[in-house]
Amino acid sequence: MSMYNLGIVKRSIVRADKAAVAKLSRFGVASIHEAMGRVGLMKTYMRPIYTGAHVCGPAVTVLLQPGDNWMLHVAAEQLQPGDVVVAACTTDNDDGFFGDLLATSFRARGALGLIIDGGVRDVKDLTEMTFPVFSRAISAKGTVKATLGSVNVPVVCAGALVNPGDVIVADPDGVVVVPAATAMQAADAAEAREANEADKRAKLAAGVLGLDMYKMREPLEKAGLRYID
Amino acid sequence: MSMYNLGIVKRSIVRADKAAVAKLSRFGVASIHEAMGRVGLMKTYMRPIYTGAHVCGPAVTVLLQPGDNWMLHVAAEQLQPGDVVVAACTTDNDDGFFGDLLATSFRARGALGLIIDGGVRDVKDLTEMTFPVFSRAISAKGTVKATLGSVNVPVVCAGALVNPGDVIVADPDGVVVVPAATAMQAADAAEAREANEADKRAKLAAGVLGLDMYKMREPLEKAGLRYID
Amino acid sequence: MSMYNLGIVKRSIVRADKAAVAKLSRFGVASIHEAMGRVGLMKTYMRPIYTGAHVCGPAVTVLLQPGDNWMLHVAAEQLQPGDVVVAACTTDNDDGFFGDLLATSFRARGALGLIIDGGVRDVKDLTEMTFPVFSRAISAKGTVKATLGSVNVPVVCAGALVNPGDVIVADPDGVVVVPAATAMQAADAAEAREANEADKRAKLAAGVLGLDMYKMREPLEKAGLRYID
Amino acid sequence: MSMYNLGIVKRSIVRADKAAVAKLSRFGVASIHEAMGRVGLMKTYMRPIYTGAHVCGPAVTVLLQPGDNWMLHVAAEQLQPGDVVVAACTTDNDDGFFGDLLATSFRARGALGLIIDGGVRDVKDLTEMTFPVFSRAISAKGTVKATLGSVNVPVVCAGALVNPGDVIVADPDGVVVVPAATAMQAADAAEAREANEADKRAKLAAGVLGLDMYKMREPLEKAGLRYID
Amino acid sequence: MSMYNLGIVKRSIVRADKAAVAKLSRFGVASIHEAMGRVGLMKTYMRPIYTGAHVCGPAVTVLLQPGDNWMLHVAAEQLQPGDVVVAACTTDNDDGFFGDLLATSFRARGALGLIIDGGVRDVKDLTEMTFPVFSRAISAKGTVKATLGSVNVPVVCAGALVNPGDVIVADPDGVVVVPAATAMQAADAAEAREANEADKRAKLAAGVLGLDMYKMREPLEKAGLRYID
Amino acid sequence: MSMYNLGIVKRSIVRADKAAVAKLSRFGVASIHEAMGRVGLMKTYMRPIYTGAHVCGPAVTVLLQPGDNWMLHVAAEQLQPGDVVVAACTTDNDDGFFGDLLATSFRARGALGLIIDGGVRDVKDLTEMTFPVFSRAISAKGTVKATLGSVNVPVVCAGALVNPGDVIVADPDGVVVVPAATAMQAADAAEAREANEADKRAKLAAGVLGLDMYKMREPLEKAGLRYID
Repeated sequence: MSMYNLGIVKRSIVRADKAAVAKLSRFGVASIHEAMGRVGLMKTYMRPIYTGAHVCGPAVTVLLQPGDNWMLHVAAEQLQPGDVVVAACTTDNDDGFFGDLLATSFRARGALGLIIDGGVRDVKDLTEMTFPVFSRAISAKGTVKATLGSVNVPVVCAGALVNPGDVIVADPDGVVVVPAATAMQAADAAEAREANEADKRAKLAAGVLGLDMYKMREPLEKAGLRYID
Repeated sequence: MSMYNLGIVKRSIVRADKAAVAKLSRFGVASIHEAMGRVGLMKTYMRPIYTGAHVCGPAVTVLLQPGDNWMLHVAAEQLQPGDVVVAACTTDNDDGFFGDLLATSFRARGALGLIIDGGVRDVKDLTEMTFPVFSRAISAKGTVKATLGSVNVPVVCAGALVNPGDVIVADPDGVVVVPAATAMQAADAAEAREANEADKRAKLAAGVLGLDMYKMREPLEKAGLRYID
Repeated sequence: MSMYNLGIVKRSIVRADKAAVAKLSRFGVASIHEAMGRVGLMKTYMRPIYTGAHVCGPAVTVLLQPGDNWMLHVAAEQLQPGDVVVAACTTDNDDGFFGDLLATSFRARGALGLIIDGGVRDVKDLTEMTFPVFSRAISAKGTVKATLGSVNVPVVCAGALVNPGDVIVADPDGVVVVPAATAMQAADAAEAREANEADKRAKLAAGVLGLDMYKMREPLEKAGLRYID
Repeated sequence: MSMYNLGIVKRSIVRADKAAVAKLSRFGVASIHEAMGRVGLMKTYMRPIYTGAHVCGPAVTVLLQPGDNWMLHVAAEQLQPGDVVVAACTTDNDDGFFGDLLATSFRARGALGLIIDGGVRDVKDLTEMTFPVFSRAISAKGTVKATLGSVNVPVVCAGALVNPGDVIVADPDGVVVVPAATAMQAADAAEAREANEADKRAKLAAGVLGLDMYKMREPLEKAGLRYID
Repeated sequence: MSMYNLGIVKRSIVRADKAAVAKLSRFGVASIHEAMGRVGLMKTYMRPIYTGAHVCGPAVTVLLQPGDNWMLHVAAEQLQPGDVVVAACTTDNDDGFFGDLLATSFRARGALGLIIDGGVRDVKDLTEMTFPVFSRAISAKGTVKATLGSVNVPVVCAGALVNPGDVIVADPDGVVVVPAATAMQAADAAEAREANEADKRAKLAAGVLGLDMYKMREPLEKAGLRYID
Repeated sequence: MSMYNLGIVKRSIVRADKAAVAKLSRFGVASIHEAMGRVGLMKTYMRPIYTGAHVCGPAVTVLLQPGDNWMLHVAAEQLQPGDVVVAACTTDNDDGFFGDLLATSFRARGALGLIIDGGVRDVKDLTEMTFPVFSRAISAKGTVKATLGSVNVPVVCAGALVNPGDVIVADPDGVVVVPAATAMQAADAAEAREANEADKRAKLAAGVLGLDMYKMREPLEKAGLRYID
């Protein structure tokens, strides 16, 4: 078992650079994902439990077993202020692994939010706490504490690989994973991109067509586009 | 056909005790479901049509045919103040079986809300009426009135067995069915549970770890959990 | 390829009569769909990106390729004030084909909204702009500009046939397509229907049962409905 | 917990009459379901693991927890020759709860097959054993033995209520549940139905139209059907 | 209602040219779809009920109501030898609209097969009859005969527009719709394509790389592909 | 872009040890997955295109763009005898990325099979070639060659992380990924496991209960299981 990442808690992880996290927190998921070359996005079924939820921070990862939230309690002890918990499961499971009690504990440890490829409950309380959660489901069904998973091992969460310490950014457009090693590079690229967009937005608002602004007419013609009446 | 529950309206049903219903209405679905031993929850695809919808009351059950809402009209006559209508269908069907006219009629009879394993429409009107509906879909598609189903027979709605008179509690976490015979017992257990939670919440907010509060360290070690650096 | 509707932009389309569009905009999707005889509704997975989104106008159609939004830029040039863009895709694809830049461009051209059988992004911005979008998904994932589709050819969008110029009406109940040729007829029928509903609503609110108002008791008895105690 | 059916094994159940089971085994699921008035069918996602799988017998029911097959081992002891195991789960879960070892044990006890609203594995072995299984998924993922469910309590399996002792019939068209109390009545009705079908088949093969054989022309005309050229 | 295609049977339809149908029957769906410029394919959830099912012929279209197969009986009378029935439904519905009796009737009329965006039953019998059916589901659940749909109106079936008389080709790769007016053109294009493929296959089997055969190395380099060690 | 794994072909990868691959090929996916501690399994939607498909070999990985199979042609050149191609996509996409021409090319290079989180076509030909493919869909829809992905970068395929050179084992129970570094260890563990199973099977066939063989009675009693009559 030791070779396969189950039953392990890694205490010392290298979190992404704080300045990079701070900078990334200023940009939207779409911009960051675009700036990264369009990789690292979680599946579109991951949705915020309340409108406007937003979170950005280094990942503490959790590997859960179906119907079992034991490892979320183990993870709590590993949390540092600013962390975002990312919980994957060894199989598709909608059970309510997380509720207001765990949220209270996570917040007391300084955690900023939760990304979980599973279900959550107590969403009314979580909303009142403005504790941001992005999940695959909402379910009142509680879980047991019987089988080991792991904390701070690499996980695949909603189709994206997450290594402990990677930066997680989540907003209404979805959840993106930014590798710790390139976090500042990604932040810089997102910044450049958003700066660039303001100019484009102004032109388009003034009635300039994307066809002209992006110089698409020639490639469209080459590709064979025909205009008919 | 008489033997199989189709084409029947049962007029006299035994509704759960009013005091139990009143008491259950004070607790959340997650607490009640937990207190009941984690049975009786509908599937997670059942969602409220507006944020904050909540309802609690004894079930008047309806068995619908696909694309046909005849039995909802038949059910209206059987409603008593405080009832919650639970509509199942003989097959998966997203059609809009229910809209503002039926809601007006149900409310005139004193019904408090609708749980339907099917689609609903007029959701803007229903929201303005604050008539709580939990459904599998929203669909503008209307239905015919041509084929018999039943009223007040046992039904399976979104994966849960509902007997007429059982208590239905629905909130943002989902929909749970509490058997009429054990409604007060469930309410008492939910009460005990929520009381207990306030204390836990305070401890967790103060930074106590679930690992310690729930005494998990020893069983985790026994299960073989290893901490590494 | 010329025979099969790819790589084509049709410039001259016949938009539905303006008076019909104006009249249709006063009615809900459920009423219009009902008035049309219950045809022309898109699948129920098409959902508004913000609560209360509503749009009505003649369709400019777009046929997209998966992961490619080139044709949306081509479509922008064909837009006239009041138009609603309807974008289908040659395969199921949740990518974020559309964001705030395209919305800015579409709005500058006078377009009122977008119906897309695909994903969209920048939903926070689109919401702040109150630019109504109904889509199958929300996704931060951007798209390329490499493969031709078409503009203003007939498309199947979320299960409904849309011809350029048809009227699209979308509200919280869904999205319906009204053929241009019968738009006024549909508007008249919807008007008659809604007028009729006010009267029914009053009766039902006063406690009259649908069973009596719709004279259902005899057909129910003929169908074999049995009341038991 | 005692009130809610978890942690219980009921040893004495009343199996449906053997003659009724034997008679039902001669008919197809479609005929039986039809004869019963079209109730009691499991969801269409339940599929046989090999072409031609067929099984008929009284149900021994099992309520599983997600990712946990402990109760299947408990159920083995309760099996009698001719039984069919019906396994439900407290939540949607595709894990491989069952494989060739359990099949060997079940067969040694005389069980005829398995219906499981979950996953199974070792399908190559099960196929070679011609041990019929109808399941929601195939998955190599094994399960733990940590949390109690129940044996021989009423369960909802794939949308259908199953009481211990009810007759389960499964064939390529799906899985139907026949209540023990009306099993012979259902068998008789299925027999009448199939006898009746032979005659209809001969007529239709000879070119007689259903329109005439079922005397549909008049009701169609009354309903307003119009023929155009 | 007359304006919206419900309650109508069109008797005189123009079937695609027989020679074109015959020629199309020699090619696979993938080749035909490719030859047509990649339009006209039904959704991938449409699957054959038995391995190796294949059918090709002009479409007689049917628009069904959920849970109601009345119009399939009406359609039988409109069938001519060689026809393929294409059945759409006004909403998603898995019920078993079609079984061996209707297949017997359809075959007696000369129909070659069925494409249905709904469920079918008696699949064991249909398989023994080698009556090819492509459907969205298999379900034992029967249907009523109560509500009008239409026969030989344009329908959207599994995401594809089908006009009566269009050629339907279905094989293990899926179902494609070839407009009647361009059927011979499509057949010619498919023929050219398949001829072309034999040559390519030989080269690839001999070890020639697609990179070289299709001259991809230069465009890949231009697009920025980098080889690393 | 260079930092994020797009537009890259890695030529030199370290394939798992040949002896380990050979040994793994003797065991089933369920046994190997179990032996590995239940990690590394792809989602259950990955299904073989024909009954009995089986493959085992080191992975050459491909990252595809939706509707675009360019990178499969690039991958062909990197194949060595015994390889298994594993193709992921940057988004969910069912298009037919792969058919008999590419299979001919892959086979000419010595590749043994394909695992693709996308669609395939020409399944009749692929079946006749007995070229094993495990995919998420079957689709006749072809793809373009316009946008770069990568070859031999780490990918997430159907929920599982695959590094180039990892061993892929696929059989009727699913697809499992064995990290190259621990391939022999996994093979040994699988061997031990299967040896162990033969003995268990014999006991169970002789009527010994799992309850006794696995000594479950005491833990079940401790957990509170109650037998009632």
